Amino acid sequence: MEKETLSPPLRRLRKLRERMAREKIEALLVGSLPNVHYLTGFSGTAGVLLVTLRNSVFFTDARYDLRAHQEVQGSRVVIAKGGNFQAALRWAARTKQARMGFESDSVSFSSYQNILQTIVNKRLVPTTGMVESLRIQKDEAEIERIRKAVHLGSKAYSETLAHLRPGMTEIEVAAEIEYRMRRNGAERPAFETIVAAGPRTALPHSSPGTRKLRRNECIMLDLGAILGGYAGDMTRTVFLDQAPRKAARIYGAVLEAQREAEQAVRVGVPCSAVDKAARRVLERHGYGRYFTHSTGHGVGREIHEQPSLARNQEALLPENAVVTVEPGVYIPGYGGVRIEDVVVVRKRGPEVLTTTPKELTVL
Amino acid sequence: MEKETLSPPLRRLRKLRERMAREKIEALLVGSLPNVHYLTGFSGTAGVLLVTLRNSVFFTDARYDLRAHQEVQGSRVVIAKGGNFQAALRWAARTKQARMGFESDSVSFSSYQNILQTIVNKRLVPTTGMVESLRIQKDEAEIERIRKAVHLGSKAYSETLAHLRPGMTEIEVAAEIEYRMRRNGAERPAFETIVAAGPRTALPHSSPGTRKLRRNECIMLDLGAILGGYAGDMTRTVFLDQAPRKAARIYGAVLEAQREAEQAVRVGVPCSAVDKAARRVLERHGYGRYFTHSTGHGVGREIHEQPSLARNQEALLPENAVVTVEPGVYIPGYGGVRIEDVVVVRKRGPEVLTTTPKELTVL
Repeated sequence: MEKETLSPPLRRLRKLRERMAREKIEALLVGSLPNVHYLTGFSGTAGVLLVTLRNSVFFTDARYDLRAHQEVQGSRVVIAKGGNFQAALRWAARTKQARMGFESDSVSFSSYQNILQTIVNKRLVPTTGMVESLRIQKDEAEIERIRKAVHLGSKAYSETLAHLRPGMTEIEVAAEIEYRMRRNGAERPAFETIVAAGPRTALPHSSPGTRKLRRNECIMLDLGAILGGYAGDMTRTVFLDQAPRKAARIYGAVLEAQREAEQAVRVGVPCSAVDKAARRVLERHGYGRYFTHSTGHGVGREIHEQPSLARNQEALLPENAVVTVEPGVYIPGYGGVRIEDVVVVRKRGPEVLTTTPKELTVL
Repeated sequence: MEKETLSPPLRRLRKLRERMAREKIEALLVGSLPNVHYLTGFSGTAGVLLVTLRNSVFFTDARYDLRAHQEVQGSRVVIAKGGNFQAALRWAARTKQARMGFESDSVSFSSYQNILQTIVNKRLVPTTGMVESLRIQKDEAEIERIRKAVHLGSKAYSETLAHLRPGMTEIEVAAEIEYRMRRNGAERPAFETIVAAGPRTALPHSSPGTRKLRRNECIMLDLGAILGGYAGDMTRTVFLDQAPRKAARIYGAVLEAQREAEQAVRVGVPCSAVDKAARRVLERHGYGRYFTHSTGHGVGREIHEQPSLARNQEALLPENAVVTVEPGVYIPGYGGVRIEDVVVVRKRGPEVLTTTPKELTVL
């Protein structure tokens, strides 16, 4: 049981090193902040990590001196002068490792030029997803954090629901949701809260505006809180007074699609199969062409991470991945319905973290 | 007066093209989102712009079809399939321009590899700050937007002040501030609102926690709202019941430093001179070594942009740059004071946009 006694950053560093060893990468420069957070426990907004097969050094600036020493586990903390990235490069240049990896998706072209100028004694290896792929399978502590973030979102949602009235603007509703997230302890919203009313619900991604809520039309709320560094994500579509027959029909189809897709979330199933489960239901109801996005995405330290539940994604769902399931139907000029839960991939089947009811809700 | 009749995106594209022509760049790939927003008027979260000396094409995905067509001025809108960046590259590959610039600070190494693979008929030119340097000098419409964002922050601040009581947690105060921003129309906070109480004010950059406000100690509030795509930024340090003598002495020194620095904000003055003005006052009061950051930064579409009011920054302040002036003193274990306003560099001298009083405030 030695494994379980290691702190999460140490466990993760060990897994990363196993992977580095397999790919013959002796040192890895980690600059992507969610990856740095994951591997160190640090929560600040600036830092770079240099991981070798035996050591790990974390570079941050003087603002974070105290916080870094309090939070970072498994890595030595160095307070950098003149830029964290430069400090990490200078440090790396003094090490003996011959093959150094860097994250090709987060290192900019100009940072790459810096690397070339500073690291002259090593073979540089562009890498992709080395840490991100470890992050797909969450440990139980991470799942608990996501559960708490999801519950906090549900709480903010249900508190806000009690205040919805015709005449409120989308912006006012979004303010209410984000205020209640904060009051309940959220660090921040995981993304710009979406509140859309009437025909604006036909846009899957609209910013809240001054449109007022009215009776008898779709009202879409898509929200997520960050708590303990992890994100929640949920969408509900509700109605004031009553749901028009057309909207209720759409709602029924989306709900059925959401439930079918949720049931398809199982260990070893291709990601595309979950997407297909939702799409098939909506096609059967004649709404296939109005489902214009993919069915879901991984969620964790970032609001969008791997895996992607989309067509053509043939990767298999691993145990303890955490994903959203969020089919929607968007009829241009009329409106849209989306229903979204967060689900854990478990050996015994899908574990839905979202506890908010998803039946047609009329306020 | 033809100049004034052009829409802002068109005026900006024209200036960019003048600069491109000078540097013999016939096409520029713009991927940094604030730059894309600046040059197009688009407000969504995904898009890439390809600017040639004669044309400009904006690529976004289907989610933003309607919004892009409503908002974008001066560029043709193309709804991309399979990634905006790839679509822009494929388009660029078909053009005749021989020298294509790309933004070396925002293009990742892997995107650079994509460029190399797709663009085989051109000379690639890494560029830095081509658009950012245009953004330093704001036009009057931009200054008005910043003024409104600043005023909105002031409003949220003063509304929150009326609610401060001993026993409230930092998080509750931050929630109150952000709620009031939103209620007053803000799109979102420009950064994570800082609320710190007591010894925690000695950290220039702390996240709000569960520490409760107490009487007779420093309470620091650093906040900014985004409104109309532009950021405000302000800091005040206040006290409940009374300010201890030591804190009041620090406060007096910081206020004097802030006013001196603000008066130093003039067209043609080196950025370092503003920093020096603040530092000199704090040194005279014996607090020089407790002023651990620079005096200010540009503010606009991003919360931190050029210019930087720091030591060694010898660039001269141009007319209509907008900067923060925010000296602070941080005594480890005791607490800190920071006072921050937003100031426009005008020919006739500094124009302070922040209207909130900055005298010692005891609630």
